[in-house]
Amino acid sequence: MDGHWNAFRAGNEINDAGRSLDANHMRPQEFHMKTAFTLAALTLAAASLPAFAKGVVINQAITEAEVLAAQQGWCKALVDISTTGTKSGQSAAKALAERVIDAAYGYQMGGVLFKPTLTVNPQTFRTTRAGALAYFVGGDPAFPKDTGFALKGWTKCEVDNAAVFIAGDSATTMGKVNITGKDGKITTVDKTWKFVKDDAGKLRIVVHHSSLEYAGQ
Amino acid sequence: MDGHWNAFRAGNEINDAGRSLDANHMRPQEFHMKTAFTLAALTLAAASLPAFAKGVVINQAITEAEVLAAQQGWCKALVDISTTGTKSGQSAAKALAERVIDAAYGYQMGGVLFKPTLTVNPQTFRTTRAGALAYFVGGDPAFPKDTGFALKGWTKCEVDNAAVFIAGDSATTMGKVNITGKDGKITTVDKTWKFVKDDAGKLRIVVHHSSLEYAGQ
Amino acid sequence: MDGHWNAFRAGNEINDAGRSLDANHMRPQEFHMKTAFTLAALTLAAASLPAFAKGVVINQAITEAEVLAAQQGWCKALVDISTTGTKSGQSAAKALAERVIDAAYGYQMGGVLFKPTLTVNPQTFRTTRAGALAYFVGGDPAFPKDTGFALKGWTKCEVDNAAVFIAGDSATTMGKVNITGKDGKITTVDKTWKFVKDDAGKLRIVVHHSSLEYAGQ
Amino acid sequence: MDGHWNAFRAGNEINDAGRSLDANHMRPQEFHMKTAFTLAALTLAAASLPAFAKGVVINQAITEAEVLAAQQGWCKALVDISTTGTKSGQSAAKALAERVIDAAYGYQMGGVLFKPTLTVNPQTFRTTRAGALAYFVGGDPAFPKDTGFALKGWTKCEVDNAAVFIAGDSATTMGKVNITGKDGKITTVDKTWKFVKDDAGKLRIVVHHSSLEYAGQ
Repeated sequence: MDGHWNAFRAGNEINDAGRSLDANHMRPQEFHMKTAFTLAALTLAAASLPAFAKGVVINQAITEAEVLAAQQGWCKALVDISTTGTKSGQSAAKALAERVIDAAYGYQMGGVLFKPTLTVNPQTFRTTRAGALAYFVGGDPAFPKDTGFALKGWTKCEVDNAAVFIAGDSATTMGKVNITGKDGKITTVDKTWKFVKDDAGKLRIVVHHSSLEYAGQ
Repeated sequence: MDGHWNAFRAGNEINDAGRSLDANHMRPQEFHMKTAFTLAALTLAAASLPAFAKGVVINQAITEAEVLAAQQGWCKALVDISTTGTKSGQSAAKALAERVIDAAYGYQMGGVLFKPTLTVNPQTFRTTRAGALAYFVGGDPAFPKDTGFALKGWTKCEVDNAAVFIAGDSATTMGKVNITGKDGKITTVDKTWKFVKDDAGKLRIVVHHSSLEYAGQ
Repeated sequence: MDGHWNAFRAGNEINDAGRSLDANHMRPQEFHMKTAFTLAALTLAAASLPAFAKGVVINQAITEAEVLAAQQGWCKALVDISTTGTKSGQSAAKALAERVIDAAYGYQMGGVLFKPTLTVNPQTFRTTRAGALAYFVGGDPAFPKDTGFALKGWTKCEVDNAAVFIAGDSATTMGKVNITGKDGKITTVDKTWKFVKDDAGKLRIVVHHSSLEYAGQ
Repeated sequence: MDGHWNAFRAGNEINDAGRSLDANHMRPQEFHMKTAFTLAALTLAAASLPAFAKGVVINQAITEAEVLAAQQGWCKALVDISTTGTKSGQSAAKALAERVIDAAYGYQMGGVLFKPTLTVNPQTFRTTRAGALAYFVGGDPAFPKDTGFALKGWTKCEVDNAAVFIAGDSATTMGKVNITGKDGKITTVDKTWKFVKDDAGKLRIVVHHSSLEYAGQ
């Protein structure tokens, strides 16, 4: 009689698959259905639903493709800044890095929580644009230990996601990023990025935690 | 040189289409690109991107299909409560209405802003579960003017969306809802619903404004 | 022993009280606590917590004061456009209305779901900036039935909220808005607004449903 | 009758102050007002605004106090599991760790992106509850390199935030966490946490990236 309320469940197969992170535990939804009332029948088969709403559709949800593109954009920018530094010098690399930071991070939106891979105390965290720029290309007396991470001659950068979590209006990724130096040696970092969509529809990084792999044991 | 930063733009064709609400006005993104710096080239063609991230993908974004299903669920529930009332009486209809409210609205999540179609002062708004229940099935002395909107013998309910706005983790719809009475007469209301996803992945109504069409002029 | 986990609960006792909308149903949290483990004691008294985090604090949550100010800004704009129309004519009123729409609505952010009070079929809904402008000041042949709602000589506008729901990064209000005409007569409408914060930190209207009170019964 | 809804208010004065990230840079909103158009007069002085909305107020925004309490809850739980392990053995510590994970993390809400401090390939990331439990207390043959981070006899845990970013309905923190071992030696880690509020109003960790400080240069 009221089985149609099942239609309120997330109908998306991808969503549901993603939720079943741990098959050994009952999902909260299953609990709900058993304790509240048993849905007699699923009368709204997905096939009978209209594919699209009539009228205007505005969809600001972040897609997986957008997240992957943003990650690759970051990687390519790192190599580009490196290449520019090698070919045209620190000043040109700095100019490019400024454009990259302004286009890809959210400093102008409110702030960024940025823990770069190689920073040390007392300037581990870079919550300002100036701190991010200094990390990438150095040359800022306010950040005396920064030598320019993006000027190390990187030739390649690849993302290997362990997980992508799209919360709807933000997305967080966690995984390995492998960057290849000029000598061909690969450095692997553990990296977390949180992206949000700005008013123009562009993804921007608002959280960035990068760390060398734990060497130990 | 830095054209790849274009990758940070929303790559989703559907999103972009949805954003072009008014073709006569320049989109903010275009404005941004012209004032900030011109992206030389789009070097990351969508076709070159991996289709999916490796690893776990958790996607809590609300989909258009979920929204449409939730709307149809509401419509079907209205007719079901009406049918139950006619066949089995107010008490059975009330029991069903309680299950519907608990399954489809967000009263237990924090609260609901509900302006039903036919309520009058001083009880126009129904921010409590009791107020919603009284509106649907009447019989509550605390809401003496309620005679039970869902008990009017409705036989059909159809949604005609003017717009669906998915903000990522919430979705709002606005449009006409046409409900057919037992005499075959159709009543059309203007309706706004806001849905959010609960922890179990189900859409729930947290805002509901319904009004008769303006007769006037 | 592990009573401190209680600290993960919203520390606000008031919230919890407010959440008990339906005493007849077990709250999800109670369920959790009973099945998972009983919290022995609350060892982290609120008084022992540091008042502020050290370091940078970025808080983009919408405040109640911001919501109230945005509502009053809308009211004042309506009266201002009316006054401008009376004193300086439709053209001046239109110019002001354009600035108001661009400053207070979210058309440039993605779109707006707008159901004005007095619109009729087939142009009930105004999802474009042009449609909103036509409603407020008329004079657009594409919207032939619009005579200019804001040109009716309104002298006063007051908001009487039934409810304000702050979801964190958006806020929805529902209530009465009383507007006084040049003859001193008050028109009351039922109004729902959803506000979001743009990248510059300003609230903008993205949903607006307005309707005359139900006359009936 | 339902005035208790006022209980949902959370009047946080701190919000606005938190926006002044960098006093040396003009805030975006000021910029906007200067470039867009000057409002003829700012007649709505803050002092003239009503302090509170009439009617129901539901406020789900995360507060800074909630974030700090959740962080301290995590710290205290780590010490408690350690103490339990020392006094009562691994089995008791494991039982407590399970309750802690279920109460403080979001595995049952959809998933968690967790990069613990000391994990190594190929099990660096722990997106499942089982992986988190193995990290904290070891003893799981599926995670053979885990010896139980929480069983190392920690006696103290303190959070030193570099930044707290409240996005409204989520909050991310980044900073140092100092944990003291049984020998009195302090280990400092760089830690990022993202919290969301569940349907019951409790904060839960959905992102957790922890790393040893960069030793080098």
